[in-house]
Amino acid sequence: MISRLERLMKKLPFYECDKKVDAAMIFSEINRMYFSGFKSSNGVILLTRNECYFITDFRYYEAAINNIKNMKVVIASDLKKDLLEIIKKHNIKNILLECNGLSLAESLKFEKWIEKENVLFIKSTILEDIISSIRSIKENKELKNIKVAQEISEKALNELLSTLKPGMREKEIAFNLEFLIRKEGAEATSFDLIVASGKNSSMPHAVPTDKPLKNGDFVTIDMGAVYNGYRSDMTRTVALGKISEKQRSVYNLVIAAQNKAIKSIKSGVLCKKIDKIARCFIYENGYEGCFGHALGHGVGLEIHESPFLSARSKQVLKSGMVVTIEPGIYLKNEFGVRIEDMVVVTEQGCQNLTFANKELVVI
Amino acid sequence: MISRLERLMKKLPFYECDKKVDAAMIFSEINRMYFSGFKSSNGVILLTRNECYFITDFRYYEAAINNIKNMKVVIASDLKKDLLEIIKKHNIKNILLECNGLSLAESLKFEKWIEKENVLFIKSTILEDIISSIRSIKENKELKNIKVAQEISEKALNELLSTLKPGMREKEIAFNLEFLIRKEGAEATSFDLIVASGKNSSMPHAVPTDKPLKNGDFVTIDMGAVYNGYRSDMTRTVALGKISEKQRSVYNLVIAAQNKAIKSIKSGVLCKKIDKIARCFIYENGYEGCFGHALGHGVGLEIHESPFLSARSKQVLKSGMVVTIEPGIYLKNEFGVRIEDMVVVTEQGCQNLTFANKELVVI
Repeated sequence: MISRLERLMKKLPFYECDKKVDAAMIFSEINRMYFSGFKSSNGVILLTRNECYFITDFRYYEAAINNIKNMKVVIASDLKKDLLEIIKKHNIKNILLECNGLSLAESLKFEKWIEKENVLFIKSTILEDIISSIRSIKENKELKNIKVAQEISEKALNELLSTLKPGMREKEIAFNLEFLIRKEGAEATSFDLIVASGKNSSMPHAVPTDKPLKNGDFVTIDMGAVYNGYRSDMTRTVALGKISEKQRSVYNLVIAAQNKAIKSIKSGVLCKKIDKIARCFIYENGYEGCFGHALGHGVGLEIHESPFLSARSKQVLKSGMVVTIEPGIYLKNEFGVRIEDMVVVTEQGCQNLTFANKELVVI
Repeated sequence: MISRLERLMKKLPFYECDKKVDAAMIFSEINRMYFSGFKSSNGVILLTRNECYFITDFRYYEAAINNIKNMKVVIASDLKKDLLEIIKKHNIKNILLECNGLSLAESLKFEKWIEKENVLFIKSTILEDIISSIRSIKENKELKNIKVAQEISEKALNELLSTLKPGMREKEIAFNLEFLIRKEGAEATSFDLIVASGKNSSMPHAVPTDKPLKNGDFVTIDMGAVYNGYRSDMTRTVALGKISEKQRSVYNLVIAAQNKAIKSIKSGVLCKKIDKIARCFIYENGYEGCFGHALGHGVGLEIHESPFLSARSKQVLKSGMVVTIEPGIYLKNEFGVRIEDMVVVTEQGCQNLTFANKELVVI
């Protein structure tokens, strides 16, 4: 199988005349880890046509040399000097930068270093685009980690649901849920967990408050776990006590919209088409304007990554992409419902990685 | 009392000929919150001579308008258009940028927006330096939050210590400690907690492992809590069962070094002088080269912020600064000891904000 790094090297415009580059530099922690397999708070990857370098500082001396097998490790005593040496050795004239991965302040420092060297920095998002398209297709070992993260999340949700009762506060529930996720073996939660009840559930990105749960509330729980750096993402909306017919009908609509979207997923389909299927269904059933966010997003080392399933997305689904499908209906000052599953795209359709119950749970 | 924003406006080089600026832009989340009092994931502060703007997006419409009292809130439907309007209205020709606060990619976007407008971006760290010097002096309400964060941390440590015993794993202890900190009311821990036992305690930045505690171990616990956005920082080293004479003597040396340093603190003293006092004492007592990090750092909205108490620091202590004093002795493959208190600098000396026991605790 062709490695991540080889895929990247093949896609870099080393030989294209109009945007020819001699080298590329990767700064961000996640992308450095993705391509080197090595986690470190400090370092730069420098790719040339013939050689890949991982440059880091003395703190990582042993660990980097022992763990990085696909790049030449340089322990920089003086980053400027070591960088310029490599630039000279390979006669590098222009370097493509990962522009999202470094601050303007850092870029000015690098710029100053090379100002006498007749080297040009190419500042664009070409490198980011190439990397995010490679990262969007998950390898088997990545899928395994995402699946474990999801299993942890589901175990924690099950444990949590058995404890929910009126009077508990959103913050308390979020805290308990985080504890359960960590106890089940996650390194962390994928993001700040959302627990939103009653009127608060009508805000898609509600932050847990001191509001106590009461009978008749919908409680929306948006959660995820991190395992070996990989994230999971899932939302369930559960009911507390007796709910209204309207609540029940909105719940069923969201589930139906999600099912329609999931059935339409397969390799080759435009992301925006999937978004449209769920959106039109919700709008046509009387809730136009009540679904104010995109249908889904890729998940992996980051909680939101490529591809994006929105109305404006130009991306195409491909086999091996892991995406969320999370339609919602939000009725201001009343309630909201969101249901989110995570699926992996296949040639013929998709495989749902989320097994938690979607029948309306009434507690 | 003069407000933070007024202090910043006074220090901006609006009227200095050689580096005159017409405006300044602040991007980073923490600095936007510090000056506006408003927490948001998105926004830009634009300061002109006559008017301060907080520009953000529709998600913060109500919240920003209700909460920001010292700036004009602009809800940007089109950030580019709204920004250019302000630039024209105030006849802005050059803008000082917070270069650490935005990525190179974002800066290129802004650059493109203004390319036809005859506006110059001033890219330096002037703004960062001014802001970090203002932030380094804590107001009373900031001190209150830091004190509460520290109280939470101490309560959690007390609870934790009563549970420690041989066989427990570092990771498990770190997890329990995090849980206690959160249970006591912290929003989060200040940083990834360090629990390092036995040989692991000889690494200043050890990450908790599955290593079980055993009798004769030193256990170094570096911890902190976040309260209202403000952080605390403390390290204690405790002994498990019977320890050697060498361990005891190293422990006493570290405590003595810390006491000497704390006694030397007062407004007007160079930071590097305090570092030197602790360092020389440790070196002169037989442990040259065994204290491989700086003596301390400022603490506030960030866990490491200005000033820095290192051998190379050029900063001067001022009344109202909150700094850590954390000498350590690290003996490779043997053990390590670090003791860290957090103090607030006063005109005559300092006030220690850390009350946790420093007598050698043997469990």
